[in-house]
Amino acid sequence: MSLQAPIADALFRPRSIALVGASGDQNKHASLPHQYLRRHGYGGDIFPINANRDSVFGERAFKNIFQVGRPVDHAFIMLPTDAVFEAVSDCCKAGVRCATILSNGFAESGESGRRRQHELVDMARDGGLRLLGPNSLGIINLPDRVALSANEILSLPELRPGRTSLISQSGSLIGAVLSRGQARGLGFAKMISVGNEADLGVAEMGDMLVDDPGTDAILLFLETVRNADGLATMARRAFTAGKPVIAFRVGRSEVGEQLAASHTGALVGSGAAMDAFLRDIGIVRVETIDAFLEVAPLVKGHRPAGGRRVSVVSTTGGGGTLVIDAVSHHDITIVPPSEAVVERLAGQGIAISRTPLIDLTLAGTNPRTYGAVLRELMASPDCDLVVSVVGSSSQFRPDRAVLPITAATQENADKPVAVFLTPHAETSLSLLAEAHVAAFRTPESCADALRAFFDWKAPRDMAGQDMPHAAAAELRGVPGDTLDAVAAGRVFAQLGVPVAGEEVLPADIAAIDALALDALAYPVVAKILSPDIAHKTEAGGVVVGCEDPQALKAACRRILESVTRASPGARLSGIQVQPLLHGIGEALLGFRRDPSVGAVVTLGAGGVLTEIYRDISVRVAPVDEAAAREMIAEVRGFAPLRGYRGLPKGDLGALAQAVAAFSRLALLDVAEAEINPVLIRPEGQGVVALDALLVKGETHAG
Amino acid sequence: MSLQAPIADALFRPRSIALVGASGDQNKHASLPHQYLRRHGYGGDIFPINANRDSVFGERAFKNIFQVGRPVDHAFIMLPTDAVFEAVSDCCKAGVRCATILSNGFAESGESGRRRQHELVDMARDGGLRLLGPNSLGIINLPDRVALSANEILSLPELRPGRTSLISQSGSLIGAVLSRGQARGLGFAKMISVGNEADLGVAEMGDMLVDDPGTDAILLFLETVRNADGLATMARRAFTAGKPVIAFRVGRSEVGEQLAASHTGALVGSGAAMDAFLRDIGIVRVETIDAFLEVAPLVKGHRPAGGRRVSVVSTTGGGGTLVIDAVSHHDITIVPPSEAVVERLAGQGIAISRTPLIDLTLAGTNPRTYGAVLRELMASPDCDLVVSVVGSSSQFRPDRAVLPITAATQENADKPVAVFLTPHAETSLSLLAEAHVAAFRTPESCADALRAFFDWKAPRDMAGQDMPHAAAAELRGVPGDTLDAVAAGRVFAQLGVPVAGEEVLPADIAAIDALALDALAYPVVAKILSPDIAHKTEAGGVVVGCEDPQALKAACRRILESVTRASPGARLSGIQVQPLLHGIGEALLGFRRDPSVGAVVTLGAGGVLTEIYRDISVRVAPVDEAAAREMIAEVRGFAPLRGYRGLPKGDLGALAQAVAAFSRLALLDVAEAEINPVLIRPEGQGVVALDALLVKGETHAG
Repeated sequence: MSLQAPIADALFRPRSIALVGASGDQNKHASLPHQYLRRHGYGGDIFPINANRDSVFGERAFKNIFQVGRPVDHAFIMLPTDAVFEAVSDCCKAGVRCATILSNGFAESGESGRRRQHELVDMARDGGLRLLGPNSLGIINLPDRVALSANEILSLPELRPGRTSLISQSGSLIGAVLSRGQARGLGFAKMISVGNEADLGVAEMGDMLVDDPGTDAILLFLETVRNADGLATMARRAFTAGKPVIAFRVGRSEVGEQLAASHTGALVGSGAAMDAFLRDIGIVRVETIDAFLEVAPLVKGHRPAGGRRVSVVSTTGGGGTLVIDAVSHHDITIVPPSEAVVERLAGQGIAISRTPLIDLTLAGTNPRTYGAVLRELMASPDCDLVVSVVGSSSQFRPDRAVLPITAATQENADKPVAVFLTPHAETSLSLLAEAHVAAFRTPESCADALRAFFDWKAPRDMAGQDMPHAAAAELRGVPGDTLDAVAAGRVFAQLGVPVAGEEVLPADIAAIDALALDALAYPVVAKILSPDIAHKTEAGGVVVGCEDPQALKAACRRILESVTRASPGARLSGIQVQPLLHGIGEALLGFRRDPSVGAVVTLGAGGVLTEIYRDISVRVAPVDEAAAREMIAEVRGFAPLRGYRGLPKGDLGALAQAVAAFSRLALLDVAEAEINPVLIRPEGQGVVALDALLVKGETHAG
Repeated sequence: MSLQAPIADALFRPRSIALVGASGDQNKHASLPHQYLRRHGYGGDIFPINANRDSVFGERAFKNIFQVGRPVDHAFIMLPTDAVFEAVSDCCKAGVRCATILSNGFAESGESGRRRQHELVDMARDGGLRLLGPNSLGIINLPDRVALSANEILSLPELRPGRTSLISQSGSLIGAVLSRGQARGLGFAKMISVGNEADLGVAEMGDMLVDDPGTDAILLFLETVRNADGLATMARRAFTAGKPVIAFRVGRSEVGEQLAASHTGALVGSGAAMDAFLRDIGIVRVETIDAFLEVAPLVKGHRPAGGRRVSVVSTTGGGGTLVIDAVSHHDITIVPPSEAVVERLAGQGIAISRTPLIDLTLAGTNPRTYGAVLRELMASPDCDLVVSVVGSSSQFRPDRAVLPITAATQENADKPVAVFLTPHAETSLSLLAEAHVAAFRTPESCADALRAFFDWKAPRDMAGQDMPHAAAAELRGVPGDTLDAVAAGRVFAQLGVPVAGEEVLPADIAAIDALALDALAYPVVAKILSPDIAHKTEAGGVVVGCEDPQALKAACRRILESVTRASPGARLSGIQVQPLLHGIGEALLGFRRDPSVGAVVTLGAGGVLTEIYRDISVRVAPVDEAAAREMIAEVRGFAPLRGYRGLPKGDLGALAQAVAAFSRLALLDVAEAEINPVLIRPEGQGVVALDALLVKGETHAG
């Protein structure tokens, strides 16, 4: 045999395909791939495999893959669940390179299905066969005319090739994206339904697309993340290669459900954790399906922007207002043209006003005028992106309307340009698509794309974090899985989080009474210490503001009586006595390991309102101080501490240090942790952790 | 002359039209209405008026309107600004019924333009001529083939008539709506560009549409509200007539700008006030341009829903998930099918699971199955609306895909149904449009329409509020425009708002020292009283917690010294002494007169976070207790007082009474007022206003 080509060739450009379970009945699903391959001009060999037929659609059929007698690059398996094993086994023996499994009944169908899937993958690995699926709708390679899928969208007579590829966890979404794209003049390169990702998943397929010279941008339709490390690596490679990765995520509603949970870490539903993860690895995340289709050309060829300043030029006041209005929800500034731009245009005989919406009215339908204004805005250092709005001329004189835009973007590729067409203007949309200019059908998708573009960040560097050995040793020294506030506080202190000093008294009133306790810095707070009591205040386990030893002893007595009554069996490890500290604000820090994306750190402003307003910032952990400062900036509840309305500023620099230190829990064997509250003192006076909780667990989840 | 027909006939169905300023040059804007009228088959007489030409497009032209010599129903004026006056004067003299003025240079162009517009309206009134515009792009009456407009959209060869009408403050938006609707198979009845609304405005045109047998639903594209009372009356009439009024409002970004203002009332930008107004008068408000086009059939024939429970049935899991995900942002519950529905379907041999997404998969593309499931869901009392999702069959077998939906909606018109089509499926969209079924192009517009439908309320009854005579007398008795806390508190008390009792001491330390002050309920709070000091605390004008007469006297001395230093010229009316009261929460009440929609009342949870999170509820004032309770429910910051996580409940019933009482300021000569804070005590213990401010002004603004 010849030297084997990379697996990507067998997947995307197989020289031969075996259709295992092929049907010759046009009404059967299993007949579709054959019809579609032919319809779209597949140039290689097709081998229908069907034990019961000699021919399919007039072509010779084979009883099994061995009968083919020639090398098969790619098998497409459309058999009932139970028959898949034999087919895969045969493929292995016959030296097939890869198999796409349409069949379902595997991990998506519960525990026994999960076991079946494991067996299948083991069998394929042993046999050197790579698998796509099961539960995959297949692969479409448009430029190379390989339509290896049962997706009904392929019954379209003609598919427009392009340079954007799609990987989808939902098979049917490929049809939606392809059909909507077709109608808009948007072409695609490769479209991959990954199904259950038993073997080849989003990350590995994405890697192939990063290496694919036919792919400029990678769209991901995600329901979950199954291989976070792989996806992160792929996203970094894509960023380096200048190929934007754009994700649309479903399952956002989970955030709401998770909010009911009681620990801070759980404030972050898996949706919010996934969003944080996608951003941290440099992926562009859109929230509308139109923007998912439309945003790629806006990002391609650019790097994340430094600011969020947008210039808007329009031939129609109404259309311009629509966009500005939609954009204004997203913390984006619409900037009027600079003095310099106005002057340079005046020099060309074009008068514009210094208003946020540059409304050229009918005069702007003159291509020379529109082009000149657009070029000046694109060359101006005073905006980060230009929105170009066109009115009815885009419907009735598409060439004339689109020309100044395509010309300007070809001259100057540095400044991102987004086009919104006010009327229904399919021809203009297609012309813009051909010229690789980002064009939006609705003001809302344009606004979503702008937000996604401005939220886009370079992949965050999470390497280079040294192992916190002292904290790890501290953690190892504590028996049991759940650490009480004192033990957890010691781990945090070793990480560099400032914690309140404390004295621990025995959980025995006679022993306490025997102590002098006059060296403490009164007033103090007394709190029960127990791994079994999560809600100390409710159990009567906290007394605030003891002024002297006598009051403290009385408080300890009350605490021991209350908690014994409230939680009879609870183990009591002592009473924690801390100085009564005052701050001007609070923060709440959470840490957990998300089952799909791994360690995440959460920051909120504390109190019930954090939950009520869902006002939290989330990042993949660990974070450095710069990322921690970004997190603090995202929490609206810290506004009073930023000097809002003349209020005294809090020490948010110290908070950033504490967040970064806390986030290094990601490097330890910790499953979940929280500090609630971190007391924030005035600027220069630092922060201090008052109460803490830590649960041990695996360093790497999943 | 014959008996005059209603003005609506002259506007929408003129028997004759004079085109004043008509041009015969095809490249000139002023030539368009003539061409468009002919192109779309206008059946009446067209009289081009042009002093310099004898013919236009081969038809006789007239030097002036008098030369026409026959009755003119409708004049369309396309002259330079200055020439408009003579044309209007001529129209008056010639007995023309109404004139649409395309010309600009009036109120939209500043103060002198505003004056010109006033003169124009006065002239027309005196002459019995009704005006549309100036700055109007005209009127299109599609079923009657009257395309009296310069809107380029009319260069389309064919326009699809329908039963939805549009009134727009932006002329160009009519083109956008019409062209997008055309592409979707959505027809329109009347489309009206109201321009500056100098005479005929949104309200009066809307009234004509309420009376128009050809109009079933009224779309409003609004940038402002110029005649709130008229719009309210029109909206009520439309509601009674069962014709939904659907508004898309631009200018939402204003909210952000207004937040920087310092008084509570100003927390409500004019955008939020307008939203409150539109809802209070029973208008459906959408937030996406697609939903604006698509929502009408969802509302038509229905009344506001009692609940927000939605059933979702789909032939594609991916498509169903898209909708559920988008909807989940809007406090809408996706309900699984009831036991009864599952059983009845089982009786027909159809097995569905009790999951929120009823995914029929490929089996659902059988019209009998899909129809049966849809019919059962529509008949179920356990949901308020049904979302029907269709996958690729809607693209490739539109008849088959749409049939079960149109059949089910014809059988049962009681339950609203929204359809989302996953692929690009124009034919299915058109078929659904023809059958008057609400169909959505994107999951986001579907979600927005559902939100708009569920937020829709019957017009709120604001009549029947008795004049608060005692409060009015109290108000009249106070000299000056700005009332201090004591005087304002007395007005509020007369309205029925509980206020803290108080003692007022003279602003003179010698006089205070001479008083015994031992009958007060210590501890007390002392606050400076001055109409000139808005920020008392900053001026050193407040001392909290004076325990006895001596401490109070010392506090008064400090206050007088501080405020004299901080505000040397300020008039000091005394020192207000109140008992130190404690509550478990606070509210902030604001009242102002919005220049466009009139009196509005605002409720927030108080503190800086109210502003930071923009967590306020707004209503047109006055509100009754039921509406006040709705407002309280909308403020998320009150969650802790609703018993959140076992916290003690606040007396929100008493708060509702106070809000309703306060809102009756709308009936008095008050421009602006606030109570900050209203102290909220535990359930059963009431609320009490602690600090107040009131500024007199006109009862009716604008």
